Order: sequence, then structure tokens, then C-alpha cells
Amino acid sequence: MATNDDLRAAGKEIQGRLWPATRTAPAGQFPAATLAPDFFDYVQQTAFGMIWTRPGLPTRDRSMITVAMLAALGHHEELRAHLAGALSVGLSRDELIEVLMQVAVYAGVPAAVGALRAAADVLAPPE
Amino acid sequence: MATNDDLRAAGKEIQGRLWPATRTAPAGQFPAATLAPDFFDYVQQTAFGMIWTRPGLPTRDRSMITVAMLAALGHHEELRAHLAGALSVGLSRDELIEVLMQVAVYAGVPAAVGALRAAADVLAPPE
Amino acid sequence: MATNDDLRAAGKEIQGRLWPATRTAPAGQFPAATLAPDFFDYVQQTAFGMIWTRPGLPTRDRSMITVAMLAALGHHEELRAHLAGALSVGLSRDELIEVLMQVAVYAGVPAAVGALRAAADVLAPPE
Amino acid sequence: MATNDDLRAAGKEIQGRLWPATRTAPAGQFPAATLAPDFFDYVQQTAFGMIWTRPGLPTRDRSMITVAMLAALGHHEELRAHLAGALSVGLSRDELIEVLMQVAVYAGVPAAVGALRAAADVLAPPE
Amino acid sequence: MATNDDLRAAGKEIQGRLWPATRTAPAGQFPAATLAPDFFDYVQQTAFGMIWTRPGLPTRDRSMITVAMLAALGHHEELRAHLAGALSVGLSRDELIEVLMQVAVYAGVPAAVGALRAAADVLAPPE
Amino acid sequence: MATNDDLRAAGKEIQGRLWPATRTAPAGQFPAATLAPDFFDYVQQTAFGMIWTRPGLPTRDRSMITVAMLAALGHHEELRAHLAGALSVGLSRDELIEVLMQVAVYAGVPAAVGALRAAADVLAPPE
Repeated sequence: MATNDDLRAAGKEIQGRLWPATRTAPAGQFPAATLAPDFFDYVQQTAFGMIWTRPGLPTRDRSMITVAMLAALGHHEELRAHLAGALSVGLSRDELIEVLMQVAVYAGVPAAVGALRAAADVLAPPE
Repeated sequence: MATNDDLRAAGKEIQGRLWPATRTAPAGQFPAATLAPDFFDYVQQTAFGMIWTRPGLPTRDRSMITVAMLAALGHHEELRAHLAGALSVGLSRDELIEVLMQVAVYAGVPAAVGALRAAADVLAPPE
Repeated sequence: MATNDDLRAAGKEIQGRLWPATRTAPAGQFPAATLAPDFFDYVQQTAFGMIWTRPGLPTRDRSMITVAMLAALGHHEELRAHLAGALSVGLSRDELIEVLMQVAVYAGVPAAVGALRAAADVLAPPE
Repeated sequence: MATNDDLRAAGKEIQGRLWPATRTAPAGQFPAATLAPDFFDYVQQTAFGMIWTRPGLPTRDRSMITVAMLAALGHHEELRAHLAGALSVGLSRDELIEVLMQVAVYAGVPAAVGALRAAADVLAPPE
Repeated sequence: MATNDDLRAAGKEIQGRLWPATRTAPAGQFPAATLAPDFFDYVQQTAFGMIWTRPGLPTRDRSMITVAMLAALGHHEELRAHLAGALSVGLSRDELIEVLMQVAVYAGVPAAVGALRAAADVLAPPE
Repeated sequence: MATNDDLRAAGKEIQGRLWPATRTAPAGQFPAATLAPDFFDYVQQTAFGMIWTRPGLPTRDRSMITVAMLAALGHHEELRAHLAGALSVGLSRDELIEVLMQVAVYAGVPAAVGALRAAADVLAPPE
């Protein structure tokens, strides 16, 4: 029997794997989080604490399908965050570019172009 | 029997309730309106003059569902305008945040995050 | 501190207000629920137990914006269910038709036509 | 200065070109129109009476872009009606198939496949 | 240097892995293919022959992200076909249900419910 | 029998008609192209080399429906590029504004407003 605090801890753990900086940073320091702290608490408990933590699919796979969906739906800010997360949980730059190319087939060329444009600096090779 | 001018007047009245500054400002001073003045005249007559003015649903309710749809569909510029309008016709900051949270259930978490990000300064409490 | 069972109970309560038959029916007797029972348990705890139950917006308003979003996004099966729910929580047939008309402005005429087509028997006046 | 009746007449004229049967059929004999007669009156006055009648773009071109948008957005019932309308205003079966193929590039292969599936009997050559 | 026939052969090979029956069936026996044979030839050469065959991402991963995108975008007929394909290339029923649950987070609960409804018989365990 | 190089040449030719500067500019000098050169090669061969070049629909018509779809789907960066291309292949400023006004009917007023906003400087009359 999980409580809200159990869900928060589970969500925070997976968020920390995707975005290691969140392990130590104080949460909720951006304007949307200041506006609606309950919402981000809800997302931590549910999306991260209840779905991402399920054992039936590896985190790497969840990350990959999340990137594909965000690109297909045109959520570019979230896409950038999840591309960074994908690199943290073990997907390679080249695999993520392949994912975004496949988006062109299923959501159209402009969706893929927009995703690649949003992704360009996140996926650029380190100099 | 309404004429085009009746529809324009009705549309202008409801626009003035949503955005009081339009009551005195000269209309159509932004680039899109300069480009396509007929379009904004059409919207004033139809969307505002023929739909928003219908008596079967209070303006406050029309404003609330408009905010929800704009957030769900990702039209962030229009969302910002209609959040300001919603405050003018009597919705509270807290009610509008609840609306945007419910968007997460029906259009996905990124739609709600994007909407809250777009809304942050419009809905921020006055200092 | 809520537990999973608290969330389920809260979700079941609001589901019972929207769809009174669920108060006594055995849950999960449709093919999708048989396929993915964990998913419908998740929805009951989160969408219904954690969002719909929040006090900041009346159930009638949550129902109205849900109908608008489902119509705007073209989810017709869910729209039909939520139109029935909307009637249960106090929205009138005429108010719901107004909501669907306003969808035409923000999501396009075909979205509203499709919604009205899907809604026709749910909203038809009782003979 | 147009009145509502002028707009209705103009809308009915263009509807009659797209769907000749509407010239003589009694209007609004389908369930959605029975449910929301004001809505279909609104569409006749605005979409048809105010937009389709504008002189700046030929009816054939308006029909072609409408088909493309309906396919891209997945409104299949409306697509079928507008494909029939497109044939009435002078587009050929082969041109319409080209339009639907181009949809694949901009809205994705599944959007085009769905549109072609919906179109199959409307665009099938007469036996 | 590939020719059109090379692309067709490469596309047919990957289609055969996803849908083994296409290895022996005569192609294009459904109404949309009869209507637009060039389109399905184009898809075979490009989507399948040029994208799915790229070595940078395993077929199983391409299948998984395709399922996620089709569910997120609401293309249910294509989703059903690609769920069957996913089972053929090695994804399990349970993994695919996890994919569809994650869709709820990023595209909304109704997108996932619709996908699970469409998937129910494809993913039902064999009796 | 076309080879990849034939498709590239055909694609480059139509791209040169839409965007004359690409005839002499070195290709792929923007960040997304540097990130994923294979993707833009794929688009040149397929979208441009295999679809836009088909004889069944004039380039002007393909350009017009592309503009309509990009506006309806909210791909504003691509819309701006294709509006410039549309002017190059013979559509007039006034025709393109008519196209964007018709978008309001089928994809909603905010889609058209967003498109007009994105289009404002591309379609502004030369001073």
C-alpha cells in the first residue's frame, strides 16, 4: 500500500535518473512550478511515481517512446528536456536521431524537422 | 434580422468585456490585422458576434471552455489572451489553474505544462 | 496522507456521480479493461481520485471543460461517455449543445460537426 | 450591407454547387441537424456564406485545400462529403488522389492511408 | 546506388518481417490500394525501404516507437496493424500494454483508452 | 528506373523552384541539417523528388495545399518557408491570405490567427 510520500519518493528517484541535477536542486524554481506547485507534485506522484516506475518496460524504452511521442505531438520544450533525459538513461545521440527520423513517417516531415530543430543543440556532439 | 454592422457591434461588445482596452483602442494595429483586416472583421462578426453572444451559456462558462480548448490544442498565444479575458469576466486565478491541471488528464501532461508555462506571467498574483 | 485505497475510493465516488450505474456494476467488464486492468485502476486513482476531486472547481465545471476538450480533440467515444456524465452532474442538454457549438470556433467546424454527430443520441430529448 | 438571410442565400448557393442534391432536399434531416439546427444555420451563413463565397480564390481551389486539411486533421466523415463536393466543382479523381498522397508528406503516412481508406468508394471510378 | 527496385525489395523484406502473410499474398488487394497503387508503392520504397531498414535502431525499437506514435496521434487502424507487427518482431503483449499506458501521460487518458480499445482483440491472450 | 541520385536531382530541381537561393547555396548549413544530414537527403529524394515532381497536380496547387496543411497543423516555421515558396511558384499574396482565412473554418480560428501572425512579414507587401 503506497502513500503519497511513497509515490513522491519513487517519482523523484526516476526523475533523478533522467535529470541528475534534480537530485540536489531545490524543486520548483521555475515560473510554472511557482504558479501551480500542486500540478508538479501530481506529475511527480503519477507520471513518474506510478507509470515510469512500472517494471514491465525498461526505463530506456520508456524514454525512447516518450521522445517519439513528444516529437510527433510537437511539444518541443518537453522534447528537449526528455532528449537530455534519454542521454542520461543510456540512449545514444545516433539512436535518438533515428527516432526523430522515424517521426517523419508517422507524423509528417514538418514534425520531424521541428523536432530536429528543437533538438539540435541538445544532441550536438560535444566539442 | 441582423446586418453585418449589428454583428460587428455585438462582437465588439463581448470583446470589450473580455479585453476592456479594446473599447477605446483603435482596432487592428498588429501585423496580422494589417495583413488580413477582412479576417479579423469576420471573426468579430461570427465568433464573437454570433457565438459568444448566444444566451444559452454564460460568458464566464464560454471563457472557461475556451481556455481549456486552447490549452488542449496548444495555441499558446491565444491562450494567453483568453486567460486575461477570463480574469476580466470573473474567473479567478485559482479556478484557471484548476482548468489547466485538468488539461493534463485529457490532452496529456506536456499540454498542461506548456499551458502553465505560457500562463505563468498572466496568472501570477499581483505583487 | 492518502493511500492507494483512499485514492480509489475518492475516484470511485466521483465516477459514481458521473455514471451512477458504476456504483453497483462490477468494474472492468469491457475488453480494454480486461486487457489492461492496471491502467483503469491508475485512471481511477489519478484522473478521478486526485484531479476531479480537487475542491477548487465545481464538478459541473470540470465536466463542462472535459466535454469541450474531448470534442476539440476528436475523442468521440470518450465524449459520449462524458456527455452522459455531464447530464448526471447537472448540465442541461441545451448548455451542452452550446459548448459543442463553441468548439467550432476554436477547433474548427468539422470538430463540432463530428462531436454533434457523436452526441446526437446521447443529447436527444427523451421522447 | 448583408443580412442573415443574404448570408443564408449565399451559403445555400455554394452548398448547392458542392452538393447539388441540397438544392432540392429539405435541409437538416440528419440527427446532428435535428439536435442543433442553429449550428448548421451558423455554418451556412459563415463558413459557406462569408468565406467560400469570397472572390479572391476560385471554388475549385477552396475545395482542394479543404480536402487537404480534412485529410491532414483526420476528419473522415467531412472528408468524404468534401471529396464528393470536389468532384462536383471540377476536380478530377486523379487530382484528388494526388492531393491525398501529398498529405502523407505533411501529416504522415497514416493520415494519408486513413484518408485513402475513407475515400475509396467516393473516388472509385464508376463501373 | 539503390534503384527503385532495390528500395521495393528492401521495403518488402521488412514488411514481411512485420506481417509474414505479405510474403506470399498478392499485394494491394484492399480498396485504398486499388485506388492509389502508386501511393503504396511510394510507402514501400520510402517508409519501409529507406527508414525502417536503417541499421541505427533495431526493428523492435522502431516498432515500439511506431506503436506509441500511432496511439498518441489516434490512428487506430494503423495502430492495430502495427501492434500485430510488433508481436511479430518480438515485442510481448505485456510490453505493448506498458507502451499504451505511457501514452496516457504524454497524449492524455482518452488517447490511451482509445488505443487500448482498438488493441483489445489484437493483444488479447490466445485462448 | 530511378537511382538515388536521380531522385536527389529531381528533388533539388523542385526545391530550386520553390526557393531559388538553394540553387547556388551550399546545402545543409543550418543546425538541424548538420545534426541529421541523412534526414534532409531523405526528404530531398522522397518528398521533393518522388511526390512534388509527380505530373498529376501542378506545382502551384501542391504549394497551395501544403500551405493550408501547415497552417492547419500549426507548423509555423515550415509554413513561413512554404509561403515564400508559394510566392516563387506563382501564388499571389492575396490568394495566400484567402487560403489562411479558409483554415479558420476547418482548423479553428486560433490556427488561422497563428498562421497569419507567422505569415505577417513573409506576406507583407513590399514597401
